[in-house]
Amino acid sequence: MIFEEKRISSQRIYEGAILNLRRDTVTVPGGTAYREIVEHNGAVAIVPITKEGKLVMVKQFRYPSGKVLLEIPAGKIDKGETNPEETARRELKEETGYTAEHFHYMGSINPSVAYTEEVIHLYAATGLIPGEADPDEDEALELVEYDFGEAYKMAASGKLVDAKTIAAVFMAKEQLDIK
Amino acid sequence: MIFEEKRISSQRIYEGAILNLRRDTVTVPGGTAYREIVEHNGAVAIVPITKEGKLVMVKQFRYPSGKVLLEIPAGKIDKGETNPEETARRELKEETGYTAEHFHYMGSINPSVAYTEEVIHLYAATGLIPGEADPDEDEALELVEYDFGEAYKMAASGKLVDAKTIAAVFMAKEQLDIK
Repeated sequence: MIFEEKRISSQRIYEGAILNLRRDTVTVPGGTAYREIVEHNGAVAIVPITKEGKLVMVKQFRYPSGKVLLEIPAGKIDKGETNPEETARRELKEETGYTAEHFHYMGSINPSVAYTEEVIHLYAATGLIPGEADPDEDEALELVEYDFGEAYKMAASGKLVDAKTIAAVFMAKEQLDIK
Repeated sequence: MIFEEKRISSQRIYEGAILNLRRDTVTVPGGTAYREIVEHNGAVAIVPITKEGKLVMVKQFRYPSGKVLLEIPAGKIDKGETNPEETARRELKEETGYTAEHFHYMGSINPSVAYTEEVIHLYAATGLIPGEADPDEDEALELVEYDFGEAYKMAASGKLVDAKTIAAVFMAKEQLDIK
């Protein structure tokens, strides 16, 4: 039986730069429980496909895992941004230099359903036009282009580890019918 | 250029039941920056496929999104558990009642690379044998079975929102060569 937990009270634990943390007391079957919730403003991620059928990806050091990860371009929704597609266009330009003739909305995903409110909006970008990148000051990126089919195989086989990249590459292949 | 951030100092903000939060000061190109890091013990998720080719999923209310989500069975690695496959077998049994003749490791994913240390280990389980479920006290689940192909289409089209489910269903189809 599905039970909809209701908030009884809420304790604010931390307010930070990219996330806040609160602890809510909620109703559960037979009593109450705590829920630790990460508040996050949301993010976008983009599958950019060049006119030659290459997938544009970024390599960057990710401090939480301590590893250099291969990901699709992505970024946080800034305060005041209300249209995720505009955020996606901004992030694509900043991280890769590309602008895109077509943005295709693929869906929105919850990266970790048990404790974060974060939602990532996924787009495919086609008709790419090269330009000058302009990464954030504390971002240090390396651009890499893969044949789409090769990146797809890496995602399918477990060689990529970033969940949004795996989901988005798969969805792009199916939704854009990429051979 | 890829830059490997190094920790300068670390401030512990919260120690909780399913996560901790700390704020690290790290080196970045041209100076220092804060990184807000969710510490998490890791999780497993399982793509259980019955002998009839059905995918076993669970529906449950997820407090952070305030929605009933359709997901593959999953759960946290308990303290003291050192073999993720054993956690996966335990969670599959608890949530669905099924035991499995075969567990196939598909890969490990990072659900949100910017701020959480969480890693989710993905398995496919085949040769399922029904049994009695034993969910956690504060879990309220509903089991649902879908034709695998139908679930795959839901994942591809953006109708599922749980990132691990989308990634794992896709990887299972490719790695197990499910038609």
